[in-house]
Amino acid sequence: MSKLVCYFTKAYSTGSASSPLSAATIERRTPTATDVQIQILYCGVCHSDLHFARNEWAFTQYPAVPGHEIVGRVTAVGSGVKKFKVGETVGVGCLVDSCRTCPDCRSGLEQFCAGMVMTYGSMDEHLNAPTLGGYAQSIVVTEDFVLRIPANLNLASAAPLLCAGITTYSPMRHWKVGPGQKVGIVGLGGLGHMGVKFARAFGAHVVLFTTSPNKVADAKRLGAHEVVVSTDADQMAAQAGSFDFILDAVSATHDINAYLNLLKHDGNLVLVGAPEKPLPVAAFPLLFRRRSLSGSLIGGLPETQEMLDFCGTHNITSDVEMIRMDQINDAYERMLKSDVKYRFVIDMATLT
Amino acid sequence: MSKLVCYFTKAYSTGSASSPLSAATIERRTPTATDVQIQILYCGVCHSDLHFARNEWAFTQYPAVPGHEIVGRVTAVGSGVKKFKVGETVGVGCLVDSCRTCPDCRSGLEQFCAGMVMTYGSMDEHLNAPTLGGYAQSIVVTEDFVLRIPANLNLASAAPLLCAGITTYSPMRHWKVGPGQKVGIVGLGGLGHMGVKFARAFGAHVVLFTTSPNKVADAKRLGAHEVVVSTDADQMAAQAGSFDFILDAVSATHDINAYLNLLKHDGNLVLVGAPEKPLPVAAFPLLFRRRSLSGSLIGGLPETQEMLDFCGTHNITSDVEMIRMDQINDAYERMLKSDVKYRFVIDMATLT
Repeated sequence: MSKLVCYFTKAYSTGSASSPLSAATIERRTPTATDVQIQILYCGVCHSDLHFARNEWAFTQYPAVPGHEIVGRVTAVGSGVKKFKVGETVGVGCLVDSCRTCPDCRSGLEQFCAGMVMTYGSMDEHLNAPTLGGYAQSIVVTEDFVLRIPANLNLASAAPLLCAGITTYSPMRHWKVGPGQKVGIVGLGGLGHMGVKFARAFGAHVVLFTTSPNKVADAKRLGAHEVVVSTDADQMAAQAGSFDFILDAVSATHDINAYLNLLKHDGNLVLVGAPEKPLPVAAFPLLFRRRSLSGSLIGGLPETQEMLDFCGTHNITSDVEMIRMDQINDAYERMLKSDVKYRFVIDMATLT
Repeated sequence: MSKLVCYFTKAYSTGSASSPLSAATIERRTPTATDVQIQILYCGVCHSDLHFARNEWAFTQYPAVPGHEIVGRVTAVGSGVKKFKVGETVGVGCLVDSCRTCPDCRSGLEQFCAGMVMTYGSMDEHLNAPTLGGYAQSIVVTEDFVLRIPANLNLASAAPLLCAGITTYSPMRHWKVGPGQKVGIVGLGGLGHMGVKFARAFGAHVVLFTTSPNKVADAKRLGAHEVVVSTDADQMAAQAGSFDFILDAVSATHDINAYLNLLKHDGNLVLVGAPEKPLPVAAFPLLFRRRSLSGSLIGGLPETQEMLDFCGTHNITSDVEMIRMDQINDAYERMLKSDVKYRFVIDMATLT
């Protein structure tokens, strides 16, 4: 595809796996007929941003701009754009395009499309260049991958819904979490705290598992009916065989079998964190109770809009800690120590 | 419960984890009002028998009698027995009783009942003694745990249906294997060869995975549409992301992630073999395609009868190799080398 006219916007980028992020100027394509140009107001900070910036998944091309929890205001629309107008408040998540024609795309499961274009780390065919994420003043996205943000939500607190929100909402919808069920959430971080809020809103009995006794009170404030300190063997044993569904939001190495044993028969444990090393899984807890260990990653565009609308109806947002753009490198270090309640969000007005 | 009157029957038992099996005389309870007494004609040899005889699961009490793939003829019935008459051909599988009152029992999922009584290695409350399995001339079982064998099936070849049959039938029914699906079966042994037959009968496109190039022709004879030699990286790569369902019947250590990567999104890999050591499971193949790793173990009584009736309709039995009772120790050694096509069955007339 020929190279389009482009414009420049300020951003925070990194030039190598070992460099800090710093101010830079990047290219965006000028909006095509079907594009929406967005002034970015807030961008959430996902652990994936850090993995990507530091090339921990070994596919990063530099210079790299992370950020896929984007909330902003429409500043321009292409001539063919039907769904959005200048001035509207919108969001962009982990995907900015897909093939549009495969069965997955036609089913609204763009996250499985072999041609999916991620917000950062994919190829932007318009520019023949890697896609660059939301740590920037503006972004241009095809309208079908732009989402509406319900008017009643705080915009900064809504930003993490675009990744942490859909990542926890989607598996609970897929596996039909609802009233009468006992649901476990493992880990109280950016993902886990959203998991607690959604599981509670879906009507389940919610049990939060944490290694930190000092998180008990906050977990209950967020909606957990019970909190189990997972290092306490007696507390764990008391929960054996009682869960319909467990959402495991822990990326650090941990004993997955201890949680598999907490499931009822036909129960499902779903990983949404991504531990780097393979997890040793014992066959017997799976066999004897027909349990399942699954994984889930974000969601498709229709379900992401559904999640945002659900959040509007139920007034759900993330608990966030606002940072300036120039605090991002410190924020990464704090995130590595789980020192955030529960998601950093960059106020993009501070990128000047 | 008070000790009932009992009778004696010949059997093959072992007195320790390191002893061979040898002829012995054991006690059976005389039939109560709801019991069926069965002359055992054939008993299949399951790998579990060997694990149990050698105390490899650390719960064996000695003397121990293995055997839970039992086919025989009714020789006596209690006064209250309604479903069976003397002379009928019947089967007994891995379970001989359960609590009858829990939600699982009421749903016909006796395999999940906390009070389930296994054919060997559980407690027989009638005798206050461990249950003893089917390597014997007769057995007494409550009528609700006795199954009908369709008249058209060869009795010796039907015996392995009681464990290997239901173990492979149940998960494929539970996860709705059927026409239009691509189904993989990993391993061509006692379980795997039944998996191939059932998957084919259910209308799926069946692919057998084996490490043995010399099993290719036989797998096709048994019903596989394709056979993949799993040590051939090119053959494996050609199957990536194409399976709806994979039944993994391998107990030996093997790379489960190689098979997870063969699943489509939302596909399921179900373990029916029981590897002793934990399997290292990589999170990414699960996350990126919402795949599941599950386990399954036998089935409930209603489903076991359904499976037998299905086998009658479709004329499905196991491929068996008949042995005399006194060949059982050699058969175990051959089983350890996978040197059997595909299930040993003991002709109990040779136990004299």
